[in-house]
Amino acid sequence: MIAALCGGVGAARFLRGLVEVVDPGEVTAIVNTGDDVVLHGLHVSPDLDTVTYTLAGAVSQERGWGLEGETWAAMDALRRYPSSLAWFSLGDRDLATHLFRTQRLREGASLSTLTAEVAAAWGVGVTVLPVTDDRLETLMDVAGEGEIGFQDYFVRRRHAVAVRAVRFRGAGASKPAPGVLDALADAEVVVVCPSNPIVSIGPLLAVPGVRDAVAAVRERVVAVSPIVAGAALKGPADRLLAELGHEVSVVGVARLYAGLAATLVVDEADAALAGAVEAEGMRCVVAPTVMRGPAEAAALARVVLGAA
Amino acid sequence: MIAALCGGVGAARFLRGLVEVVDPGEVTAIVNTGDDVVLHGLHVSPDLDTVTYTLAGAVSQERGWGLEGETWAAMDALRRYPSSLAWFSLGDRDLATHLFRTQRLREGASLSTLTAEVAAAWGVGVTVLPVTDDRLETLMDVAGEGEIGFQDYFVRRRHAVAVRAVRFRGAGASKPAPGVLDALADAEVVVVCPSNPIVSIGPLLAVPGVRDAVAAVRERVVAVSPIVAGAALKGPADRLLAELGHEVSVVGVARLYAGLAATLVVDEADAALAGAVEAEGMRCVVAPTVMRGPAEAAALARVVLGAA
Repeated sequence: MIAALCGGVGAARFLRGLVEVVDPGEVTAIVNTGDDVVLHGLHVSPDLDTVTYTLAGAVSQERGWGLEGETWAAMDALRRYPSSLAWFSLGDRDLATHLFRTQRLREGASLSTLTAEVAAAWGVGVTVLPVTDDRLETLMDVAGEGEIGFQDYFVRRRHAVAVRAVRFRGAGASKPAPGVLDALADAEVVVVCPSNPIVSIGPLLAVPGVRDAVAAVRERVVAVSPIVAGAALKGPADRLLAELGHEVSVVGVARLYAGLAATLVVDEADAALAGAVEAEGMRCVVAPTVMRGPAEAAALARVVLGAA
Repeated sequence: MIAALCGGVGAARFLRGLVEVVDPGEVTAIVNTGDDVVLHGLHVSPDLDTVTYTLAGAVSQERGWGLEGETWAAMDALRRYPSSLAWFSLGDRDLATHLFRTQRLREGASLSTLTAEVAAAWGVGVTVLPVTDDRLETLMDVAGEGEIGFQDYFVRRRHAVAVRAVRFRGAGASKPAPGVLDALADAEVVVVCPSNPIVSIGPLLAVPGVRDAVAAVRERVVAVSPIVAGAALKGPADRLLAELGHEVSVVGVARLYAGLAATLVVDEADAALAGAVEAEGMRCVVAPTVMRGPAEAAALARVVLGAA
């Protein structure tokens, strides 16, 4: 059994490679829900959908999120109205997922139950779990503005504002979703996917019990650095790390993960920093980590499994 | 000033004719919200939308509701999931209206405020008012099942089940929306549109103050019979009237409206019943009432205005 701690695009691409190497039924993806947002009354779970759509082979190759061949009639029509939410694009077919999710929540289903239903509907064999069924909300404390929601930061402001702090509202009172702690305890390998350590992996670790469950199996935990040659491949991880006082390098990542993971996989571009990573108390494995397609993702998955 | 008590398709078609005859700015449409339903978390107001889309010239000619040239990508995609709501079709562009409405309600806007915003966005000059900003819910007591929601009855069961009673939940505690009572008091003519007396006009009259406000200006109130030659032109009005013990004829309609309206316009097909209508205490005007297009609707509007 393999458990993976997941954010969105980077994690989804890694999982897509992983299921080329192992039986999908052996894999549990534990996915960030701190990015979840209620828009127009609809419950949107961006990371869960990115993981499911990617594993289904249905994700937009160009965007990395949303569906390939999507249409945008609803959003186009929304522009007629003085909507406060036109900045968040919801594709027509993607809307169906949010309509279904919202209705199931209204019917009393838990997020983990309906997420399994969504994954099954897409024929995804991986067990896709939200980290928690409780409301968890990543808030960004932005200079001059105060706290704003993650999507407001990420989509509306295109992560182009300075962040002073990050908070996971609701985390303290949240419980891991059914299956999360068992998946971590039972896993032969736990993968910390190449996701943003602050806003993708951070919320997972903020759910009481998860950090301890990962640390308890530290020897079997392999993290993949999302920082390559001092920069994030995608998104604001580099900027956020710097703004919050972390070193923007694989060494900075090692300092964040050393208590949780015995091994850090870094890209060949960072080979020279392997010694510095090991000085932080982690084994360092150097390998190609940039996943341009499923073949490279599968190769990276083999490296990760071999490193455990 | 003209005030119109409105349900959906029949009322919308009448209004479309009325604005050919008078300045739209002189017209206030007071619209049923008992059909409103929250689906997938979205607030859907079928009659308000039918009135607005029809006045905008954007309604589907074939269906009478929804938008012309609509696409259905979201609903098609919803079929992938085990949704309990696939029986209710929401077009992609129509969804934008529900997204906007739901978001505005979440922002604290009243239904009447956002309805005015929707009407303005469509360039509709008529004042479109929900009868109330409060939640009003038409419930159908169905033999063998008990109470079900109106859309469940109308759409899911295609009104093919026997109704024992109709109730307007929330009506007792509701208040007329701002402008409703003034529009009735100030109108030179109040039109009871050719809508279902039980489930379209009924909810309007169930809002405290509305029935009295209409009755107070009875001499200026003109109703158009939705029953022609003993049958409804559209929908279950005939069946419902019979099931609830009313006569399915213009005389039965006269008995329902005699306390509210001085005049009943009946179709030429019912000319022979004019005396029986007058015996119920209403003036009876005989005219073509079947609106195949805007020209016939405009002619009917002229008859109604002339009858007041």
